[in-house]
Amino acid sequence: MGTDNRPHPDVAGGVMAAREWGDDIIFTGDRAIIQAALQRHDTAGLNIHVVHAEQQIAMDEKPSSIVRGKPQSSIHVGMELVKIGEADAFISAGNTGATLAVAILSKLKRLKGVQRPALGTTFPFPGLPLSIDNGANADCKAEYLAQFGIIGSAYMQCVRGIANPTVGIISNGEEEGKGNILVKEATKLLAAAPINFVGNIEPSDFIAGAANVGVTDGFTGNIMLKTAEATAKMIVDAVVRNVESSKRMTTGMQIIRPAIAAVERDLSADTFGGAPLLGVNGVVIVCHGGSSPMAIKNSVQMARLAVENDVVGAIKAKIS
Amino acid sequence: MGTDNRPHPDVAGGVMAAREWGDDIIFTGDRAIIQAALQRHDTAGLNIHVVHAEQQIAMDEKPSSIVRGKPQSSIHVGMELVKIGEADAFISAGNTGATLAVAILSKLKRLKGVQRPALGTTFPFPGLPLSIDNGANADCKAEYLAQFGIIGSAYMQCVRGIANPTVGIISNGEEEGKGNILVKEATKLLAAAPINFVGNIEPSDFIAGAANVGVTDGFTGNIMLKTAEATAKMIVDAVVRNVESSKRMTTGMQIIRPAIAAVERDLSADTFGGAPLLGVNGVVIVCHGGSSPMAIKNSVQMARLAVENDVVGAIKAKIS
Repeated sequence: MGTDNRPHPDVAGGVMAAREWGDDIIFTGDRAIIQAALQRHDTAGLNIHVVHAEQQIAMDEKPSSIVRGKPQSSIHVGMELVKIGEADAFISAGNTGATLAVAILSKLKRLKGVQRPALGTTFPFPGLPLSIDNGANADCKAEYLAQFGIIGSAYMQCVRGIANPTVGIISNGEEEGKGNILVKEATKLLAAAPINFVGNIEPSDFIAGAANVGVTDGFTGNIMLKTAEATAKMIVDAVVRNVESSKRMTTGMQIIRPAIAAVERDLSADTFGGAPLLGVNGVVIVCHGGSSPMAIKNSVQMARLAVENDVVGAIKAKIS
Repeated sequence: MGTDNRPHPDVAGGVMAAREWGDDIIFTGDRAIIQAALQRHDTAGLNIHVVHAEQQIAMDEKPSSIVRGKPQSSIHVGMELVKIGEADAFISAGNTGATLAVAILSKLKRLKGVQRPALGTTFPFPGLPLSIDNGANADCKAEYLAQFGIIGSAYMQCVRGIANPTVGIISNGEEEGKGNILVKEATKLLAAAPINFVGNIEPSDFIAGAANVGVTDGFTGNIMLKTAEATAKMIVDAVVRNVESSKRMTTGMQIIRPAIAAVERDLSADTFGGAPLLGVNGVVIVCHGGSSPMAIKNSVQMARLAVENDVVGAIKAKIS
């Protein structure tokens, strides 16, 4: 019940995952609405279940009022299934703040020793670097950032199989001593942490794959992510607009359209799925409200890899 | 003596401005080196002068040690000319930190009432919005951000002729209440300031032209700028790389090459010149070390517009 076009992309993506990978999918939300959506699909032989949730959450509801005020929302019900071991992971394209609040404050809680759970985002750039945090914590202390480095490193080891992931801190210059006060303080802690810390990295370094993990506070990470998304869209649109101003170029555009489509696909959230919420006692993947079925399907894969490789256990071990 | 390829782009750009617009150009730096570079150009009839500066500043020197330690650097000498009224503006593609430090701490000083001078950057997006600060102040108080809004608004009125510029604050969500603590506090002050404040804007809004001015701290602004530049380059490179993997598409690419070149040109710092340092008692433009002659030339135009429209007087009046 999470996407802007709920429940159709959610249901379609879940069904695709069940068909392609044999995953066991539980949809939580209004049973009648979900079952009506499932009618559009051939689900014969697939492991698909519906668990009813009475309440719905609007996008503009405040997370703080949801945690206690809507205990029967699809987010609560789904996260409860993870808590009691009936589900291995929870995926939501709904209200991000509500998903984080229910996970952290109510159902799953922080792992012992974790100060602030954080959202990791895979950037669609060479080497597929992970930026952490991307929006769970707008205001951070240096200690949080040091933990983000450890948590991000554990994630890349477990889920992406990188033996000794490089970890940088996003800064406004690559030279030592650059950065704001938060970056400078966090740099000292990261340098002392049991990770492969490579120091300051600028956004251009991060985009070029200079580190597997880019540590940042949730405000800066979110600005970086949204700037990259908006710029990418702007560039593609500008090329298309310039081309369309010329008939001759329009012919050329038809020829290279596959190349532009490939770039758009490579950059698309569809390819990677959502952002893992790391540092809570369970696997939670947060998706864009505008997620397509493909994005939901790939989030199921991301969740499965996190479960199979026990990311939660690895983070717990590293932080302790 | 500022660019990475000093003094050639600096000299070539200055000569172009003198020829095209009749500007009176003074080069500061090693007289012999500059005059040798000038030999490559036809300067007959142009208003071009050289003022010798004995010392040079390396890119890795600390700004703090330069201010007092290199009083005869080309930055000091050029800024002194502005201070004593022998020059109307100073442009440098050298060490940014040194340029800011010499301007703020030594030669020009802050305008009365200005808490922190800031770098304004024109983003090459629809409507050419100005982001302020972009790197002069990595750590900011809310009061600084409120002044950035007033200063940026005055700049857009004076130099760009926008009667009542819209001013937003860069945030991680457009809804009221989004943002980190700094943004939330600055929002209150900006709402009470004598400007046309439109509230929170996300990077995508800023890129789409939702406000003429985007207020931000210097760390976030710098990350946003560098992310946009790196992403733009990455997208263009990815399209070209995908195209080159196919002979048929290479033909298409030749046809639409002008459209991609137009986008690259529109996005280029060349088109806009450098970033004005706003809030000091004089006109100072800071350019990339990698500036081309065109970027230097266009910075001269930017400086002339700032002088002719008395940006310094306008900022002084607004802040008082």
